[in-house]
Amino acid sequence: MYSKLSGWDDTIAAIATPPGIGAIGVLRLSGDQAFEIMQKLFSSKDLKRQVANTLHVGFIKEGENVLDEVVISLFKKPASYTGEDVIEISCHGSAYVQQQVLDALIRNGARLAKPGEFTQRAFLNKKLDLAQAEAVGDLIASNTKASQNAALKNMRGGFSKVLKDLREELIKFSSLIELELDFSEEDVEFADRHQFSLLVEKISKKVNQLLTSFKLGNVIKNGVSVAIVGKPNAGKSTLLNTLLNENRAIVSEIAGTTRDTIEETININGILFRLIDTAGIREHSQDIIESMGVIRSKEKIKQADIVLYLFDINDMALDELSETISEIKKQNSNIIIAANKADLLDKKLHKQFAEEIFISAHEQTGIEELKTILFAMAGGEGINNENIIVTNARHFSDLGEVSKSLKDIQTGIENHISGDLLSIDINRCLYYLGEITGEITNEDRLDYIFSKFCIGK
Amino acid sequence: MYSKLSGWDDTIAAIATPPGIGAIGVLRLSGDQAFEIMQKLFSSKDLKRQVANTLHVGFIKEGENVLDEVVISLFKKPASYTGEDVIEISCHGSAYVQQQVLDALIRNGARLAKPGEFTQRAFLNKKLDLAQAEAVGDLIASNTKASQNAALKNMRGGFSKVLKDLREELIKFSSLIELELDFSEEDVEFADRHQFSLLVEKISKKVNQLLTSFKLGNVIKNGVSVAIVGKPNAGKSTLLNTLLNENRAIVSEIAGTTRDTIEETININGILFRLIDTAGIREHSQDIIESMGVIRSKEKIKQADIVLYLFDINDMALDELSETISEIKKQNSNIIIAANKADLLDKKLHKQFAEEIFISAHEQTGIEELKTILFAMAGGEGINNENIIVTNARHFSDLGEVSKSLKDIQTGIENHISGDLLSIDINRCLYYLGEITGEITNEDRLDYIFSKFCIGK
Repeated sequence: MYSKLSGWDDTIAAIATPPGIGAIGVLRLSGDQAFEIMQKLFSSKDLKRQVANTLHVGFIKEGENVLDEVVISLFKKPASYTGEDVIEISCHGSAYVQQQVLDALIRNGARLAKPGEFTQRAFLNKKLDLAQAEAVGDLIASNTKASQNAALKNMRGGFSKVLKDLREELIKFSSLIELELDFSEEDVEFADRHQFSLLVEKISKKVNQLLTSFKLGNVIKNGVSVAIVGKPNAGKSTLLNTLLNENRAIVSEIAGTTRDTIEETININGILFRLIDTAGIREHSQDIIESMGVIRSKEKIKQADIVLYLFDINDMALDELSETISEIKKQNSNIIIAANKADLLDKKLHKQFAEEIFISAHEQTGIEELKTILFAMAGGEGINNENIIVTNARHFSDLGEVSKSLKDIQTGIENHISGDLLSIDINRCLYYLGEITGEITNEDRLDYIFSKFCIGK
Repeated sequence: MYSKLSGWDDTIAAIATPPGIGAIGVLRLSGDQAFEIMQKLFSSKDLKRQVANTLHVGFIKEGENVLDEVVISLFKKPASYTGEDVIEISCHGSAYVQQQVLDALIRNGARLAKPGEFTQRAFLNKKLDLAQAEAVGDLIASNTKASQNAALKNMRGGFSKVLKDLREELIKFSSLIELELDFSEEDVEFADRHQFSLLVEKISKKVNQLLTSFKLGNVIKNGVSVAIVGKPNAGKSTLLNTLLNENRAIVSEIAGTTRDTIEETININGILFRLIDTAGIREHSQDIIESMGVIRSKEKIKQADIVLYLFDINDMALDELSETISEIKKQNSNIIIAANKADLLDKKLHKQFAEEIFISAHEQTGIEELKTILFAMAGGEGINNENIIVTNARHFSDLGEVSKSLKDIQTGIENHISGDLLSIDINRCLYYLGEITGEITNEDRLDYIFSKFCIGK
């Protein structure tokens, strides 16, 4: 099936470390010609005679032209990342030097790797399945403890194992039903319909658990957007500072990350919350509900996962407040109402709204409660249990199809439909289960999935 | 001498690859405890029993907490970069994951490495001398063929060898003179003054060659700034585009590189030219010679290595031109006068100035000549010969002191001064020679030199 993949026989090369200047830069070379190509540039040792999994220091030379002094790591197939012969070149971390070495590899027979091609080859050589391969990409993109854990769990095959087990049980029944079809004129039933119904119920339960986990999975992978809304004097910037100073997220600066909408990021117990200060967003004037005064952007409120409405408890009449909040709720009902400057109020505090909490951004009171509520609203409590969490939208979509097929199978059993019709639904279910782990797939789909990886992986 | 260096016994750790997201991130661990610390986090193998220069795949775990699946490279002292036990950890290229692994190393006994500390340890363990260590930093910063070559040559010890040879010859004579001092009452002369004078002459010649090479060395290392000056309609942007499109320099984007003054960079035969469009520079109005109309910034012209004055040959009277050029020359005499739009002129072209060339930025004529002149004015022709090129300002400064001492020695010999006085000058000369390669140094100086390295190197 994969034999016709274009460029499959090529030996591929790429810079695998981030761009820029560092102490070390690593290049990767994978394919049948890896040792041969490297040998042309690394003359101090006979590479093919070296033991696998060893390190060798030497100069990269192209003719008389010395490019760098490097350490090369030798991996031999099939015991390598890609399942092919792999050589990693650890050179001095100058972008220029790395490019020179890459150019030399290409001049000597390698081809520049496509994004994700190393991992794609690992998949094609059955070093990992598709869900595991996708987890590699997720791990690289991970920026919190939770996203790291979820990716590692999937990379180690936890999710794949669950799916494969379900699929195998289903296949067992499926083959019994196929057998019935061979004996269709004799009207025998090898597959016990009651047993099958119980199995389908069991699988459905598991699949629905996985589907449900995606809400948290999505939160883990993409974070939670929180639109902070309030009048200019409500204390938004003080609250932002209080939240940020305590708990600034460690997120590396990546080119292309715009700061137009994502204002700041905080990490609460391993979940990233993107705090969007709606007051700072420039919008077309028609989007602004001028009459409200405080609400700058309907759209941002609508799009946010959570709206944090902040008001100065000393400075807002109840009717104005009620009106504002009901306007916000029309756009988004995931709301936290934070009555700020509660420390300045002389009288006893009474909740006017179910979603209301009392804080003082300045005195830093109520902040822990606010964070606890944010974490809970994001479904964060599921983060620490050992369940498999679906983080990948493609898997979620396939699982949805699996769930639909299972319902059709169950209905079919209840209605005593014939084995050949049942078989169609079962095969559809098996197809979608297999698609997640890549047991069933096609070239275009694979290319699409791996194209989202970075080059060098 | 180095035994009291603070933290010298610590095992140090750092992320060695550039910050950001990539396929791979590499961490480095060096010191007596490297294997012990790694073992706490990498439990699948007994690391101390593994052969040196081998690679091992496994999980990094802190207790039950899995951080990543990694490949570790084991190097054992003294055959390692630092001369100590070294482990490199190749993990998934998430900035977050790398930080987690680094934190775990530090929690388990490593200390965060200071900038350049790995290379500093390599120097202290005599894996390389100071000039070679500095060349490592230069190689990492290299961004052209010429800077790469110069750094590699120095890293391989070419420069150090020359200096050590000179120093040894000088020491031989010095010891003969010291011997004379022991017999000072007998008025013997073990050191033949004529021979010594010839030696000093030979050394001086070599040192002066090295000093002269620094002009090119500096150009190789830091590039050449070219202020492009001219009226708005002279065709500056067309010229810039012509130069850039043909030959855009491969320079990675690095955070912090401001584009306020450095407009664009081109690489001519391995030398970087920074083209500064003075018209684009915002200056305080008092710096602008308003009366000239064309000259926006005296300072930029004064500071540039080369001034490229561009004018429209069809649009400028000779007297205005002469006046402008003589004003520019008061600031900077390294000038190229480019008569642009020469293709539009109907009459025969006559040079009005010695530095004048005729070009058409639009028709791309004369551009090769312009580049040849730029390259020649930068002293580029010396780039391809095999001579040692001094690229380091510290070395240049020390060589200057060596040269002065040699002159004093020569004068001393000519004036028949006594051996003990001669000895003082010789020791001063030996001191500065030794300082370049680090045979003579002190802790503060070392710390300063290595502090300019990046962390992880």
